[in-house]
Amino acid sequence: MQELSRLPGIGEKSATRLAFHLVRGNRQQIQDLAQALLDVTDKIRLCSSCMTLTEADPCALCTDPRRDAETICVVASPSDLIAIDRGGHFRGRYHVLHGLLSPLEGIGPDDLRIAELIRRLAGTAEVPPVKEVIIATSPSVDGEATAMYIARTLKPLGVKVSRIATGLPVGGELEYSDQATIARALAGRATM
Amino acid sequence: MQELSRLPGIGEKSATRLAFHLVRGNRQQIQDLAQALLDVTDKIRLCSSCMTLTEADPCALCTDPRRDAETICVVASPSDLIAIDRGGHFRGRYHVLHGLLSPLEGIGPDDLRIAELIRRLAGTAEVPPVKEVIIATSPSVDGEATAMYIARTLKPLGVKVSRIATGLPVGGELEYSDQATIARALAGRATM
Repeated sequence: MQELSRLPGIGEKSATRLAFHLVRGNRQQIQDLAQALLDVTDKIRLCSSCMTLTEADPCALCTDPRRDAETICVVASPSDLIAIDRGGHFRGRYHVLHGLLSPLEGIGPDDLRIAELIRRLAGTAEVPPVKEVIIATSPSVDGEATAMYIARTLKPLGVKVSRIATGLPVGGELEYSDQATIARALAGRATM
Repeated sequence: MQELSRLPGIGEKSATRLAFHLVRGNRQQIQDLAQALLDVTDKIRLCSSCMTLTEADPCALCTDPRRDAETICVVASPSDLIAIDRGGHFRGRYHVLHGLLSPLEGIGPDDLRIAELIRRLAGTAEVPPVKEVIIATSPSVDGEATAMYIARTLKPLGVKVSRIATGLPVGGELEYSDQATIARALAGRATM
């Protein structure tokens, strides 16, 4: 119970319920779970190219020849990468920062995987140089600050830097949208 | 009770409660309400220029000299106009369509105030010609169809037509966004 209650979102009551469920459950299931937990620490590492979580290095995304290596989509976390890739619309590659700049929490540029991103821009013998970096951090305060910092850092290196659109979500109603979003939707309007 | 229950969102129970409240309330309050209702039908009309609801014709928005008459923001309803204008970021003028195209509900172009919009483009003796029309209908199926129709109709007339941005709302998280919105945010990315 003590070990379980250290997990995020699991309090004393949930830990008790889980513990009793495990004790009562079949032995094989518990061993499978324990093995999976050991595997995570042993097998999962960061891809040396895009920094996402992976078993093989480089990861499947970085070695997929159908993916356009000239366009890199920068995200804050592996879960954001999955959120974007689930849609299947983006066919370039990714770069995971593992966090966002946050002066309040003491997270600076050196705590993020920005140096690793810069190293990728020039390309290698197998990979062509990067033409466009799309910054897909969330439109929150930290996400915007991180996007600004990366843009300022990368633009002098001669790469195109773009930012995902902020505006009304698909199916959203103007009447129920907040003013900041409406202002950004107007400012970010595109010629039809 | 019968009259009250015809109003939107007011069922039999609410109508009963409202009716008893009014009967028990002070006479002056009821007379004020009745007068306000009469005034609405007598005094409120459509602005002959922008088609929004107004007491004075042309409305205060169309006669405000500090508002840029060369930029028109097209909205579906007066409540959408208020949602945009509340922010104070947009300093142009408006045009209210009074609905959206909807083949399912049998609403075609002639049911909307599109002819009135076209008539405004050339300007008048006092008002300069329109340079840009920003279509600010919601990113719903009907809103998108209406935007496409208006763009196709206006562009041959030599006016710039733009569309408000669709994307992640301010403060929104990538991880919790729907795939259609993420796809639109990527497609609508802007160079930083």
